Amino acid sequence: MIHPRTLRVDYGRTISVVCVVGSELNVNLNRSAPPSSKFFSVKCTSNVYYNISPPPESKSHLSPIPINDNSVLLISMRSASQSENDSKLTVRYYAENREVLGIAVLHLTGVEISLDVDADRDGVVEKNNPNKGSWKWGPKGHGAILLVNCDTEQTYWKRPDTEQAFVSNVSDLKDMSLMVLRTKGPAKLPEGYKLTMHISQGHAERVRVFRAKNPGGANNAKHSFFDYFVRDYPLVLSSKVLSEEVPYLGGEAQMNCYVEGLHFPDKDFDGLVRVNLSLLEPICEGLPETPIFTDTVVFRVAPWIMTPNTLEPAEVFVCSTSDNYQFLKEMKDLVAKSGLKLRTCFENMNRGDRWMQDEIEFGYIDSPHHRFPVVLDSPRDRGLKDFPYKELLGGDFGYVTRVPEREDVGSLDSFGNLEVSPPVSVNGKNYPLGRILIGVAFPTTTQGRNMTQVVQDFLWAQKVQEPIALFSDWLVVGHIDEFMTFVPAPDRKGFRLLLASPDAGFKLFRRLQKDGHGQAKLFDGVPNQETITVDEILQDDDFKSQNDYVQGCIDWNRDVLKRELGLDEEDIIDLPILFKLDTDALDKDAKVVRAVAFYPDMVNMIVLGKRLGIPKPFGPRVNGRCALEAEMCSLMGVLGLSCTFIDDFASYHKMLGEVHCGSNVRRQPFKFKWWKLEM
Amino acid sequence: MIHPRTLRVDYGRTISVVCVVGSELNVNLNRSAPPSSKFFSVKCTSNVYYNISPPPESKSHLSPIPINDNSVLLISMRSASQSENDSKLTVRYYAENREVLGIAVLHLTGVEISLDVDADRDGVVEKNNPNKGSWKWGPKGHGAILLVNCDTEQTYWKRPDTEQAFVSNVSDLKDMSLMVLRTKGPAKLPEGYKLTMHISQGHAERVRVFRAKNPGGANNAKHSFFDYFVRDYPLVLSSKVLSEEVPYLGGEAQMNCYVEGLHFPDKDFDGLVRVNLSLLEPICEGLPETPIFTDTVVFRVAPWIMTPNTLEPAEVFVCSTSDNYQFLKEMKDLVAKSGLKLRTCFENMNRGDRWMQDEIEFGYIDSPHHRFPVVLDSPRDRGLKDFPYKELLGGDFGYVTRVPEREDVGSLDSFGNLEVSPPVSVNGKNYPLGRILIGVAFPTTTQGRNMTQVVQDFLWAQKVQEPIALFSDWLVVGHIDEFMTFVPAPDRKGFRLLLASPDAGFKLFRRLQKDGHGQAKLFDGVPNQETITVDEILQDDDFKSQNDYVQGCIDWNRDVLKRELGLDEEDIIDLPILFKLDTDALDKDAKVVRAVAFYPDMVNMIVLGKRLGIPKPFGPRVNGRCALEAEMCSLMGVLGLSCTFIDDFASYHKMLGEVHCGSNVRRQPFKFKWWKLEM
Repeated sequence: MIHPRTLRVDYGRTISVVCVVGSELNVNLNRSAPPSSKFFSVKCTSNVYYNISPPPESKSHLSPIPINDNSVLLISMRSASQSENDSKLTVRYYAENREVLGIAVLHLTGVEISLDVDADRDGVVEKNNPNKGSWKWGPKGHGAILLVNCDTEQTYWKRPDTEQAFVSNVSDLKDMSLMVLRTKGPAKLPEGYKLTMHISQGHAERVRVFRAKNPGGANNAKHSFFDYFVRDYPLVLSSKVLSEEVPYLGGEAQMNCYVEGLHFPDKDFDGLVRVNLSLLEPICEGLPETPIFTDTVVFRVAPWIMTPNTLEPAEVFVCSTSDNYQFLKEMKDLVAKSGLKLRTCFENMNRGDRWMQDEIEFGYIDSPHHRFPVVLDSPRDRGLKDFPYKELLGGDFGYVTRVPEREDVGSLDSFGNLEVSPPVSVNGKNYPLGRILIGVAFPTTTQGRNMTQVVQDFLWAQKVQEPIALFSDWLVVGHIDEFMTFVPAPDRKGFRLLLASPDAGFKLFRRLQKDGHGQAKLFDGVPNQETITVDEILQDDDFKSQNDYVQGCIDWNRDVLKRELGLDEEDIIDLPILFKLDTDALDKDAKVVRAVAFYPDMVNMIVLGKRLGIPKPFGPRVNGRCALEAEMCSLMGVLGLSCTFIDDFASYHKMLGEVHCGSNVRRQPFKFKWWKLEM
Repeated sequence: MIHPRTLRVDYGRTISVVCVVGSELNVNLNRSAPPSSKFFSVKCTSNVYYNISPPPESKSHLSPIPINDNSVLLISMRSASQSENDSKLTVRYYAENREVLGIAVLHLTGVEISLDVDADRDGVVEKNNPNKGSWKWGPKGHGAILLVNCDTEQTYWKRPDTEQAFVSNVSDLKDMSLMVLRTKGPAKLPEGYKLTMHISQGHAERVRVFRAKNPGGANNAKHSFFDYFVRDYPLVLSSKVLSEEVPYLGGEAQMNCYVEGLHFPDKDFDGLVRVNLSLLEPICEGLPETPIFTDTVVFRVAPWIMTPNTLEPAEVFVCSTSDNYQFLKEMKDLVAKSGLKLRTCFENMNRGDRWMQDEIEFGYIDSPHHRFPVVLDSPRDRGLKDFPYKELLGGDFGYVTRVPEREDVGSLDSFGNLEVSPPVSVNGKNYPLGRILIGVAFPTTTQGRNMTQVVQDFLWAQKVQEPIALFSDWLVVGHIDEFMTFVPAPDRKGFRLLLASPDAGFKLFRRLQKDGHGQAKLFDGVPNQETITVDEILQDDDFKSQNDYVQGCIDWNRDVLKRELGLDEEDIIDLPILFKLDTDALDKDAKVVRAVAFYPDMVNMIVLGKRLGIPKPFGPRVNGRCALEAEMCSLMGVLGLSCTFIDDFASYHKMLGEVHCGSNVRRQPFKFKWWKLEM
């Protein structure tokens, strides 16, 4: 929207003025009239239009019009000028007796100016979208989108492109949002007028704006490769330069600018950024030029989006260590059957850290013009510390991290403790991108462990997958993937929530006992592991109490999940899994008792489409078949899912993790576009 | 809203459980049934209610009901228990042949728990308002309100009450919001159960929660005065204690708590604070107690609100200096005529700083239970530095300030540069509390002066008087009160915007010249001031150019004000005021040219209801009367306003300020309540 601007004219003088097409110049006639003026008349060239407010009583403008206290002349132009001052308007002032008391002459130069973005989100920068200055969520929403340029164009000494304030390669431009300055008018602006791009300090800390120096993008062989891009795409706005002149190209022209997002939405940043373009009118030396027209566009920085188990897998990641050959082999088979590639992180990079799930979380960022995966690096930083930055960060593969300044990083900061649900609808509110899930301590305790605040703040600020805090501090390791996961389903909401359930476990073991299999052994054939019979398990009252407590903890989460994800009983499947309590192995000083899985924790699985890679439970054998595997296959089979049991006993389970903890999956993004969310 | 909770029962065992009235316990029957169970039946005492999901086909509950995979028993209680475990429910499990396979027994204790606030904003804490957990703006809105306890209960060594973490006086309690914990149940809770109040770290930094130790508020004469309050109102929650047990009082009881706001809404604080109360169920030593019921209330911290000139004055403030006796006398007369008291700040406190407008801005905070004025102290800090803290801060008179950490404080940080409009409506959007106005440089310049960011952030964060940034950097002093003010009017929008206007000035002088008064002198009779005639003014082309520039600057603001306040030409009155340009007297190094008023700047007035105190302009005398005063009286007289011209020439005007700069007015608050705003 272009606002009216007050213009001063003086009788006895000719003034030149630039008029932006679409804008309105208001001249207060009474204020600038010669003393004793009673009437006025207006004459102008064909390109100039005028109105008088309040409208004169006589409909003919041939005879002079009475001036009153509030007579305002409203002047506009409907097209750009071919040359400077090619349009004219004259005001004559008359005395009572129609004697001319004075003449004011206005020379006008019409220009068209529009700062343009892709406000309708179709990947094309349209001309002067009326909604370009505001941002609205939803299918009928509008407003341009910006990506954080968190990938890198470099192969060596790489770092995210956000960390360098220049365009290093033409491929870098596609990570930025195109913003076009369209102008039309004479070959040059009248003396002293100029165009300035500007931004507020707060917003300047969130973006950079570059522009193409040569509109045609001419190749200049005289420059070195580095010079080429730095010189051809000069930096216009940054946190150090809040306002800078941009050239007026003359005639009908467009200048391409490139806006680069620097920060994801966070606690102190709502994601919105405004960029302004003003036409400045000169006064004289020592006086600031007056902005007589300002066009504003708004961008929202795209949030980081997580991908649930129901999305198609794209790549599977595992670590190779000195002791996990068998696990790797079984994983490789499963992944090959799924038609995917296994990416193995070797020991020189993982330094013995096998917990691929815990160091990173895969997600992506999306806009109408471009999309790429982005890895969120956990502040955990054990052996795999360098893997995401050194191995994953690359062209069209972004990197982001949040590291607390003062707080300690603990076990709950691992990303086995960060998951996301499939799309859900809760009491009429839709979450088409699902909801993020994290594990923390009860808010009522003063001694519990938590996920570090900066990571929580980051997750909440993304907004589009509103997080839910679960209770995971009851576990020694403390990750929500120890008791829950989601699998795709052909019916109902398109998925099931799987929960570890000691009750389901005891129910199964009691049935086995009742059916005469009380002497069947768990852990049969597992090296260095004592076996235990079904009868022994069922007669241990203390063990039962421990599992009752665990079931209580999981039920607490079950209640939260049902409520916050809008689930029914029928959406949940209880898996027969037992736990045991121990004084916290990770926290020797604390007298806190926490839980670990008693046998390989089947819920801690990898989900690859319809194929599940499940920790092999080594349960009691009945008629030659593991009763736990049989139960699992039966429960999953109903959903059309196939179970592959992977032996992770020695190399993961004994170290308090399982298949899921030891792997990671990059998935295809949602088809649903985040900006179509109703917020 | 109370959510369902999963409860585990075991056959062959009796378990005791506390059930909060209004909540629902869900028992998954299949999960805990003995193997081979096919049917179940339920029996309970009269205070216990149950439902079965999915509902059994047979409508009679007399015969056993088939168990299916998802059979859930939904248990609730409708009133509190008289004694522990006084209610009972039994589940019997049957085999195919109706043989009883197991019995699960549940002992129940019903309690009523409600954390209550004044969610309907009538000054009374109602019981269990269904909307207490959310906050909604508007006439049909809801949600409790909190005041920042920024006044002081102390007379000596005073500091705002927010700075001390105890209740120093019973009068302190009325600055806080009452929050009542209502409970009903047996004399004591079953062993190990407890009530805990808790809050998140982020919110705990914004409030403190105290509680009354003795519900009856018994007076205990054994304590000293200080001990009395500290001990009788112990601190429950603060940034150092996020979770604390509160006593369960037994029977039907209520415990009064007092919530104290510590911070105004700001850049990093949206003003909303949640306080939670949970009932904890014991597990056993070493395991965290489980929150089985949580009640949450939400408060919004009341914003700081400014008062426009159209509100009734309450007190007028001026400074006494060695040279302003005459000014003081004239002000005293005007204030007396208005029926108000003049409060004079003497030299020992003002240390020669006469700019009462610039050091402080009066506002207030409001809630359904209490309201008081709050002074915003400018970071300017010249001679009047200590005045707001030492003289104004007091009982029911609050104090707030924002001081930048690193940036320099400049002339635009004085509060002559901070004003507020009367209520307006702009394109259908209502601003019933008006809009805040500040002056800054053009955003297109890199060298302009600005108002410090922390003060701007504070003003924007209050939200209810959405600020507008004007251009004031063209003035040497740089305050918006040098070119604009608002006066009450009987018609139209209830006010007029007055703008200084060199065009109106020149028009008046030209008329005088034309009428034969070209030799009339300005400044006639002013000591130590050369006179100048109307003719001399009109023949100085350079002076006219300077004023054309000034008119352009004011017109730029006029356009913004019309647009942002929804004003018409008829809502604005141009006052005949001339300016002159000079290299900036406040900024000797800069080669910038800025403006000061050429004669006393009549728009810089004090507005006391229908009485205006206007700088005496010392304009040209025509027929014994100052033509500027006559014009002013004529323009204001139409609105029913009376003009008193106050001689501030030597003591203010020559020092680049006027009447408004040298005074301040505390006004009555708006009748409109801020929480009724549609946001």
